[in-house]
Order: sequence, then C-alpha cells, then structure tokens
Amino acid sequence: MSRFLSPEALGLDPYTPGEQPRDQQYIKLNTNESPFPPSPKVLEALSRAEAEKLCLYSDPTCAALNAAIARRYGLGPENVVSGNGSDEILAFAFRAFCGTGRGAAFADITYGFYEAQAALFGLEARRVPLREDFSLCTDDYMDFPGTVVIANPNAPTGMTVPVDHIRRLLEKDPDRVVVVDEAYVDFGAESCVPLVREYENLLVTQTMSKSRSLAGGRVGFALGSGALIADLNRVKYSFNPYNVNRLSLLAGAAAMEDEGYFRSCCRAVRENRAWTAEALEKRGFTVLPSSANFVFAKSDRIPGGELYRGLKAGGVLVRWFDKDRIRDFVRITIGSREQMEALMKGIDSLTAKT
Amino acid sequence: MSRFLSPEALGLDPYTPGEQPRDQQYIKLNTNESPFPPSPKVLEALSRAEAEKLCLYSDPTCAALNAAIARRYGLGPENVVSGNGSDEILAFAFRAFCGTGRGAAFADITYGFYEAQAALFGLEARRVPLREDFSLCTDDYMDFPGTVVIANPNAPTGMTVPVDHIRRLLEKDPDRVVVVDEAYVDFGAESCVPLVREYENLLVTQTMSKSRSLAGGRVGFALGSGALIADLNRVKYSFNPYNVNRLSLLAGAAAMEDEGYFRSCCRAVRENRAWTAEALEKRGFTVLPSSANFVFAKSDRIPGGELYRGLKAGGVLVRWFDKDRIRDFVRITIGSREQMEALMKGIDSLTAKT
Repeated sequence: MSRFLSPEALGLDPYTPGEQPRDQQYIKLNTNESPFPPSPKVLEALSRAEAEKLCLYSDPTCAALNAAIARRYGLGPENVVSGNGSDEILAFAFRAFCGTGRGAAFADITYGFYEAQAALFGLEARRVPLREDFSLCTDDYMDFPGTVVIANPNAPTGMTVPVDHIRRLLEKDPDRVVVVDEAYVDFGAESCVPLVREYENLLVTQTMSKSRSLAGGRVGFALGSGALIADLNRVKYSFNPYNVNRLSLLAGAAAMEDEGYFRSCCRAVRENRAWTAEALEKRGFTVLPSSANFVFAKSDRIPGGELYRGLKAGGVLVRWFDKDRIRDFVRITIGSREQMEALMKGIDSLTAKT
Repeated sequence: MSRFLSPEALGLDPYTPGEQPRDQQYIKLNTNESPFPPSPKVLEALSRAEAEKLCLYSDPTCAALNAAIARRYGLGPENVVSGNGSDEILAFAFRAFCGTGRGAAFADITYGFYEAQAALFGLEARRVPLREDFSLCTDDYMDFPGTVVIANPNAPTGMTVPVDHIRRLLEKDPDRVVVVDEAYVDFGAESCVPLVREYENLLVTQTMSKSRSLAGGRVGFALGSGALIADLNRVKYSFNPYNVNRLSLLAGAAAMEDEGYFRSCCRAVRENRAWTAEALEKRGFTVLPSSANFVFAKSDRIPGGELYRGLKAGGVLVRWFDKDRIRDFVRITIGSREQMEALMKGIDSLTAKT
C-alpha cells in the first residue's frame, strides 16, 4: 500500500481467488470450473474471420448476446444486461441499488466477493448468520431495509433456498431490491427467473463460467425488470461501456444457444456429484446436500486444513477456507469421473496414514 | 431510472460511446479504431486449442501479459497492471487515489470518461479549461491538491503536452498522483513511460485498442511504481479479480511482442494523417496539430453538426460533440487511405451544395 492510497481504498477488503497454478500439473477441483470444454458451437463461433475484426470495438449494447439470453429465458432484451463475468454485474448492482442509507445484507457464510464489493462502495454490510445446519432462512432478512443478496445455491455450502421463500421476501417490501445470485443454479436448484416478470424488485444474476464452460471467457449476466436493468446500464456506462469483448460476445451467444450440450454437461456433473457424495460418505465424510457443481464436506478423521494441504501435496487442489464455522470443511469442485477417482485415491492415501 | 436507484447512482453521468452501427455499412471514422487487423501473431495465438481451455478461469495475475508489457517497456512485472481496456484501469485509479478530501482535476475538453468515472465514485472534479488555442498548460494544475489526469495526446484535440512540463508537475508535489493517459501516444507523441522509474507518483495508462488493433479485445494497462500498481491491484481484487479473459491475455501478449507489425501500423496511420490534414486544409478546414490517430478539424463553410450529419447520410461516420467550445469541430479517425479518400469525396459533395 502506498502513501497515495485514498481512505476509501484503504478500507477495501480484496477477495482472494482460488489458486490458479500456471504449471497445470494439479487436478484442479478448487475454483468450480467445468471439466468439459465449451460447446463445439463456441469453438466454431471463434473463427479466424472474427479474430480479424478485433480491431473494431465490441458492441457496447451486447445486443446479439442479450437477445440469445432473453430468448433462452423467455424474456425481452430489455430484461438482460451482460458483463465481464457476473462479478462485474454484481458490482454494478451494489453501486446501482446501495449507498447512503441503503446497505446490503448477505449471509456470513457465502460468496466472499459480496463483502469485497460492499467495501468497494463503502456500503454498510450486514452479515446474517446461516442457521446451525448452514441453511439460509429468508425470515432473517425480512425486515432488513437495504438490498438483500442471496446466493442460491449458496457457496460454499451448495445448499438451496426455496423459491417460495424468496417470493415472500420480494413481497414483504416491494421497494427493496433482492439480488439472487444463481451462479450454480443449473446444477439442480430451482431458479427465480420465472419471477422476473412478476416482481420489479428482483434481480437474478447468472454466469457462463460454470454450467456453460466459459470461466475463461468471462461472461455473466443479470435478468430483471426493465427498470432495474436500465439502472445497471447507467452504472455500466459510467464504468466501462465496452465491458464485454468481441470474442466473449460470440462465445456467450453460441454457448447459450447450444441447449443440448448444456444439458448433457449439467447432467454429467449431477451424476458425478452423486457418485462423489456417496464415495465421500463411505469414507466417513459429512457432505452437505449440494445442488451446485461442488460439494462441501468434512472428514471425521482429518481437519480441513490438513486435508487441503495433504491433497495438494498429492497433486489435487481443493478449496479450504480458514474461517470460523467452516474451518473443518473443504469445498470440492465436481470434475470428471477420472478426476473424482483421483481425489478419492488422494483421500485414501491420506487417511491410511492417520 | 427506477425507484430503487441509490442517490449515488442517481448522480452518475454515464458516458455516451460513439455510434457502433451493427449493419457495418458505414465507413467508420468515429471511434478511433485501427483500420488494420490485429497482428498475424495475434491470430495465431487465438488457436482452437486455446479456445478449448475457456472452461478454465484466466490467470488473475495476468502474469504472461504483464511480463510481455514489462519487457517491451524495460520495466519489471511489478510495474504493470492489466485491465479490461484502459477504461477499467482508469476506474481503478480513480478509486485507488481519490476520495474524501482528494478530488480529481482534468481538462474541460478531454476524454469524456473522466467525468463519468469521477461521478461513479462521488469525487469532487475540477475541470480546468484548456487555453484558447486548445493547448493544455500544466501550470494550471500546479497547485491542485488531488489527482491530476492528463490525456497526452489529448482527445479529441490530438494535441500534446511536453514531457518536461509533466515532469515539473510530478516534482511540484510528490504526494500527488499524476495519471497520464497515453491511449494515443504511439502515433507520434513523447511518452512519459521513461519517467516511471524516476517518479513514484506517476501512473501511465495505455491501451491496445488503437495502435495494436485490439479495440474489440479490450486490453489496457498501466505502468507505474510498484506502490501505485499494488494499490490498483487492491481495487482490482475488490472488483473483478479475473478481469482479463483468457483470449485477450493471449492476444495482448502476442500484439505486444510483434514490434514490427506495430511499427508499420503506426507509420501508416501517421502517413495517412499527414495526407488527411493536408487534404482538409486544402478544403478550407482548420486542423489542430495532431499526434494521435485522429484529427480534430473545423470547416470554414459547414458547421460541425451539419458536417457530421451530412457525412453520415453519405455513409461516413465521424464524431461530433455537441458541446461548448468544440461544437464547430468534428473528430475524424485516421483510417486507411481508401477510407480517407471516401471522406474527402463526402466532404466535397457536401461543400458543393453550400
């Protein structure tokens, strides 16, 4: 930190992303990426002819991408805004809907980035504890006067909130925005997208990083009422109008249009998740009920930190959060069957030593 | 605007990007893009094998890209941060170095985005008028106590500030950050990059959108002391850690490494600029002395708005700012010789009517 840092920047709480080792020698089960390459249609879309057009700016309105997203979800293009990953969209939402007198509430155990972004805009943040069993109870947010942010499924637990509970939250205070972060929804949770037409105060964010195999392409989007989307665009055009690059616009639209590939990837992840949960339970793990492309599990024999370090030494990366309440757990991304088998081998070799 | 908008977002002043017609039927001389495709090395770097890896996140540290940039400028990787275009980097700088008690100063006639971004963070912004001849005089900023942002060359004028003047500004107050936005520097201006090792309070931003034909790839970067770069990373990791996507990381590094192609593109633009300025002057235009890939010019016969609309009707897009002091001018991107000839034809056909 330099002597030039503003007091506001001093108060930031930067997010620590999962390790991204550059040598690629690990089995990477630590950042919830897809084990499958992008759709063949994405690869086709990224043609040499399109690369030659990189000298021209991307469409700031993201019209073709937004239209593809809108079609997929039965909404209008005025209900969609796209971003450089859903992280960017979340930042836009914090700026658009929070500020003086209107803070943000989110769970104590959730995506760590909400905390970082609330600090970015100097917001008052209320951390609402998950219940003892790690469930998120919307009753705990009913009277909060600011913006409510709920990851559904939640990370790193993988657990869901019933859509009917979110509906009650939306109805309780129609002047309060509820942001539902559905980064992991495609792996088996119920989505709030069908409520977008009903509730003007609902914003649903999604990402193509997980279920659409485009983590490295950085494409996220939000669905909401025309009014909310216009507000987000107001922020976007104050921050970075050309926020999605040309190739990601193409890749995102192609990924969104290949419904068959999308479904088969999600199905494979769900099958591998069931296999993984069972294999972990057989080995004495407690596995929280996951609807995401990861499981959150703790061993009855090895503390979380030790498991993380032991697996890493054996070439398997999982994510461990050195944080109260969840220190005993590791978050394991659901990869291919071969990757999950390698994980079990790593676990077996560690537990054999204890 | 919705009833959910925060007071802070209400105070925003969103930027209006140049028209990006999707039908591609115009000769586009309105957004300062390169008329040349990216380097053949960029096209090679964007291979199918790399597209297949889009399921994995990009390197949040942008290590390979930053290393290529550092090598090119004789700096260390700790002196570089990359972003989703230099617009994003500028936003990081406003957040990092400005805030309560420390505003930002910039010219009244300059890149309109500074205004938008200062509003994004609720900063006090001082607009310092350019002199009568549109020159920027650093004396006018000497006693400003906050962050100074200077586009050099300036946009939309194309005019430069001598590096020695910026040096005096840096020395006057070593506790004040001076941001020099060198988006257009490669087309003939003197760069402040050699001062980066000398002055801890200097931040130079550059973009690959212009001289490296990657506007649609969205790659920008800043060069500065290790301390300033660390501050920018603090903001980046609070906003969007994976801010540059995989393909843009590759494209940016390849573009940075192809020095020969870069030089030949810049030379062609300079030659076409000289040709264009002369052709305009022959037609009675006043052309400001430009070191950028555009010229700012006014006709002695047609008002700026009329010229813009007339050219657009004839299929040529230039940029017109309906703004005090510069309403008579249009900003014309330097394209290929064929494009500039089409422009002259358009102008001739308009002036024949007057």
